Amino acid sequence: MHAGNENTADTVLLAGVRRGERRALAKAITLVESTLPEHQARAADLITKILPARGTSMRIGISGVPGVGKSTFIEALGLYVIAQGHKVAVLAVDPSSSLTGGSILGDKTRMEKLSLCDEAFIRPSPSSGALGGVTDHTREAILLCEAAGYDIIIVETVGVGQSEIAVAAMTDLFVLMQLPNAGDDLQAIKKGIMELADLVVFNKADIDPLASQRAVAQMRAALSMLRPVSVNWTPLVVSLSALKQDGLETFWQHVSDFRLKMQASGEFESKRKHQALAWMDQQINSGLRQRFKQHPAVAAALSEISAAVENGSMTSAAAAQRLLGLAS
Amino acid sequence: MHAGNENTADTVLLAGVRRGERRALAKAITLVESTLPEHQARAADLITKILPARGTSMRIGISGVPGVGKSTFIEALGLYVIAQGHKVAVLAVDPSSSLTGGSILGDKTRMEKLSLCDEAFIRPSPSSGALGGVTDHTREAILLCEAAGYDIIIVETVGVGQSEIAVAAMTDLFVLMQLPNAGDDLQAIKKGIMELADLVVFNKADIDPLASQRAVAQMRAALSMLRPVSVNWTPLVVSLSALKQDGLETFWQHVSDFRLKMQASGEFESKRKHQALAWMDQQINSGLRQRFKQHPAVAAALSEISAAVENGSMTSAAAAQRLLGLAS
Repeated sequence: MHAGNENTADTVLLAGVRRGERRALAKAITLVESTLPEHQARAADLITKILPARGTSMRIGISGVPGVGKSTFIEALGLYVIAQGHKVAVLAVDPSSSLTGGSILGDKTRMEKLSLCDEAFIRPSPSSGALGGVTDHTREAILLCEAAGYDIIIVETVGVGQSEIAVAAMTDLFVLMQLPNAGDDLQAIKKGIMELADLVVFNKADIDPLASQRAVAQMRAALSMLRPVSVNWTPLVVSLSALKQDGLETFWQHVSDFRLKMQASGEFESKRKHQALAWMDQQINSGLRQRFKQHPAVAAALSEISAAVENGSMTSAAAAQRLLGLAS
Repeated sequence: MHAGNENTADTVLLAGVRRGERRALAKAITLVESTLPEHQARAADLITKILPARGTSMRIGISGVPGVGKSTFIEALGLYVIAQGHKVAVLAVDPSSSLTGGSILGDKTRMEKLSLCDEAFIRPSPSSGALGGVTDHTREAILLCEAAGYDIIIVETVGVGQSEIAVAAMTDLFVLMQLPNAGDDLQAIKKGIMELADLVVFNKADIDPLASQRAVAQMRAALSMLRPVSVNWTPLVVSLSALKQDGLETFWQHVSDFRLKMQASGEFESKRKHQALAWMDQQINSGLRQRFKQHPAVAAALSEISAAVENGSMTSAAAAQRLLGLAS
């Protein structure tokens, strides 16, 4: 009876999502984010029913340190693409959310104009869980947004390596927002983030146009020394002012070019396939690891064997063999 | 009878290693590098008998692109430390060895003077296997060299990210050799290698002292923007000429300072423990993965489930759950 009610409720929810109702979409994402086993089962069922995903969306990852102007840029971009006839969903992967209660999209006053548009769906970052769990939910939230008819999916994150790598691994195009100073460039290069960027954006070009031009030139020089990730696309650098809505058209032109080139070459599709398989592999690995650690014989022997490795009386290789033997 | 002979042979071999005989050491390392299961069992037995390792050694990783002068530097350094009363072993992790038949230490004429010293043991890189296997052998070769009384262990590699990370993970101190040009710096920063460096060496300072000084200053500025790995050590940059044997004393003074500071703080010991546990973990993970892939039910279903993930009819999460269920 109870299960039947949920089943009916989920059918209604699914229909709501498919009709593009924002409330239904929000509820479905909440179900996906829930840690309750019964919710997880319902969420898995829901997701399965919306598959296969329609391949007509564009998933855009946007990252940058706090203060770079991500909200202003995403709001301006969202309004711009809605004017072009698109529907925009904004999701967030916030590595700090479990510590601070959410530093991205937590502020209700952010993106005020965009949030008033019928063609926009803005989802605050999930407020709990490790990055692994959060990114998993975000992947499924993307699928739900696409099922609800949102064709431009923006996934926002802040400038810490792990979350940027996660976001780049779930989007078609990755945008790195930079402040015009060299130290910032170096940080991005150092963390291996620059390699992820398909587009680099210097925001706030209106404040100091000269510094902005210099930064663009330096970044182009730096990027030219890195090997591009794709043979079909050479990363581009643009400067713009999100506040003055200046440069958005050029930015969007680059995004459209990117999409055309990637789709024409087949890389758009193959990249998505590769991302999905890589994510499956990651989850298998963490599942295997979890199961291994929970194996009674391993759990009983692990601390003693680890101590032997630490004090040098057993090699790492011998210890690994021993523990693997206990788990088989 | 056969096993008994091997047992006796291995006891003789072990005694030879313990007496510091280079031929016995070379034979023991060959056993460790062998892929034959019977050799692997004997090697594991041999390694177990030499444990726990004596903690009086210093393991130094040295990396740099071809042409930076690694051989010349290692030979000059080896001769210098032998003159200080040390015994030196030189090992190599060569990521290209399986492709090219060995690009490091393959040339017999390299390090001619050092190889003639009784206090030096030079081991060419293993000529086969994936990087994983090679680094595992190198870790065990280090233990054998230490058992044979070599107290300075130099592990050499070339400038490709993966092998450098592997070498840094098995040594106490990591030295990055650089050529005085900015592109080279950027490559190292990009690959995340700069972060691994405890000491950065600009070789060939005699050729263009000014360029060398400039490179040192630039590198110091770049390093100051990266967060040091250890609270007990700030990475240093030195220029020297291995060919003219100029600057070796300063270099070695830095190595000695590093060791003192790391030992006094307890980080020397804790880093080795951490390295050993991390290596155990890596081997467990790859063992679990291998076992998973070889599981009959997984092997039978994997391609179909992967195809479903690729064409979007199954989520990565659902596929991972399904496959993990099959393997349990």
